[in-house]
Amino acid sequence: MIKEVTITGGTHGNELIGIYLVKSWLKEPKAIQRSNFKTSCYLLNKKAIKECRRYIDRDLNRCFNTKILSSQSELYEENLAKEIDELLGKKGSDNPKSDFIVDLHTTTANMGLSIVVSNENQLTWEVISYIKDKVPELNVYMWRGDEEDSFVDSIAPNGFAIEVGAIPQGVLRSDLYQKTEQIVYHLLDFIEIYNSDKSYSLRDVEYFEHVMLVNYPKDKDGDIEAMVHEDRQDRDFELISTGEPLFRRFDGEIISYEGEDLYTLFINEAAYYEKGFAMTLARKKIKKI
Amino acid sequence: MIKEVTITGGTHGNELIGIYLVKSWLKEPKAIQRSNFKTSCYLLNKKAIKECRRYIDRDLNRCFNTKILSSQSELYEENLAKEIDELLGKKGSDNPKSDFIVDLHTTTANMGLSIVVSNENQLTWEVISYIKDKVPELNVYMWRGDEEDSFVDSIAPNGFAIEVGAIPQGVLRSDLYQKTEQIVYHLLDFIEIYNSDKSYSLRDVEYFEHVMLVNYPKDKDGDIEAMVHEDRQDRDFELISTGEPLFRRFDGEIISYEGEDLYTLFINEAAYYEKGFAMTLARKKIKKI
Repeated sequence: MIKEVTITGGTHGNELIGIYLVKSWLKEPKAIQRSNFKTSCYLLNKKAIKECRRYIDRDLNRCFNTKILSSQSELYEENLAKEIDELLGKKGSDNPKSDFIVDLHTTTANMGLSIVVSNENQLTWEVISYIKDKVPELNVYMWRGDEEDSFVDSIAPNGFAIEVGAIPQGVLRSDLYQKTEQIVYHLLDFIEIYNSDKSYSLRDVEYFEHVMLVNYPKDKDGDIEAMVHEDRQDRDFELISTGEPLFRRFDGEIISYEGEDLYTLFINEAAYYEKGFAMTLARKKIKKI
Repeated sequence: MIKEVTITGGTHGNELIGIYLVKSWLKEPKAIQRSNFKTSCYLLNKKAIKECRRYIDRDLNRCFNTKILSSQSELYEENLAKEIDELLGKKGSDNPKSDFIVDLHTTTANMGLSIVVSNENQLTWEVISYIKDKVPELNVYMWRGDEEDSFVDSIAPNGFAIEVGAIPQGVLRSDLYQKTEQIVYHLLDFIEIYNSDKSYSLRDVEYFEHVMLVNYPKDKDGDIEAMVHEDRQDRDFELISTGEPLFRRFDGEIISYEGEDLYTLFINEAAYYEKGFAMTLARKKIKKI
């Protein structure tokens, strides 16, 4: 039995779709209310939202690991993470405040409608299966992050992030706003079925399992020396094979991919420049439900 | 006779194409050297570039009006503008350091390859005509800015900004990088012809003349109440007529356009949210050359 589902927006202060969806639900909560559980929603990083920046001191969505949650810190987001863990967790608790966290994100990569999941629980995957049945274009990426086990949804027993793109930081797109909204409604609809006596049947889920990050080539000063090759740009969830163009150096030279056939994801995400990677690589798999 | 052409990048610290083009020319200046004039290039807002932000205290590309250039200030960009005016101007001087400034920008709006020009000088428009002949997809927008006469290129007798998009802030795209590079090379090629004894002939130029800004609807707290309607998104340089959808409110309601038939430009540019406008409107005209 699920008692509380939590929708979080503004984990990154410049990803406007989640921020404005949460603002609209805080004003008019009817659309997210269901008959047999409570739905709560929160704007998480209000200071970053105000400045329309991803974060103030460090990426909030990399702060929810047990080390940070149990240490003293002077960084704004590390302390904020502890407050959020008190409010919605605590992480690993047998009696958490929230049973399911869905965290709303956008990306500058052409990820379409995606779920980024690091949770192995049955219910989480049943929710994903249900949504994918309603929204066949949805892609599912099993990724624990570039810093493991640190996402905000990791403080509840179940959850994931919704990632939609391509959309610039600091921008709304009405089409992706409405599609994100619909995914959330499907999620809530399924939890209502799950909590009821109704029977349901679900299909196995095709998903992409994280393999590795692909770093930008850098010069001796640590600045990037190349950009994503124009033939790879926007080809998220597509295969790449040895010999295909990967980067173009600023002097024009092409750097080709070398490695096994894998799928390219999060290609050219703005926030990953400072982390140093240009895309991630993943393998297609099937999750038995 | 043109003695010096100046290419500026990083006027906005999160518009990476101009920044990395200038970095690459600072390393390898051969590509921008021509036989009969000097080409210089500069990164303008190094502090904002380092933080990958548009600006630190205020938009540098709104600081080059005579009022700011002649006043005391504590704002970083207002003082930087004065330094740049010393380096490349002075504005209005009979003997300016630079004769032509081309300032490299990107936009999250779907502006394709565009020139934003606020200069009426014959040479500026001859350059535009020459480039448009080489790059027919180029659009020309005659706009003096939301704050008049304040662009960096206004401190030289001739010049304009190149605006390419759609591209998120903080992101490179190889396709648009190469196209921006080509536009700059055409510019330099024409100045070389202009300075020589060669004769040339040019065509009249179709351009878009600024009419007005379109503001976002706002609530009593000053927050936006609507986003660009999904049918208007990405339709830069297209006509809008009375009755066509303009905005979608967060509650779903549609706000339609009312007014004369005009062209929509700079639709959904990230940097214009804080300025409060969602797009600009323009009229198509012909410039006699």
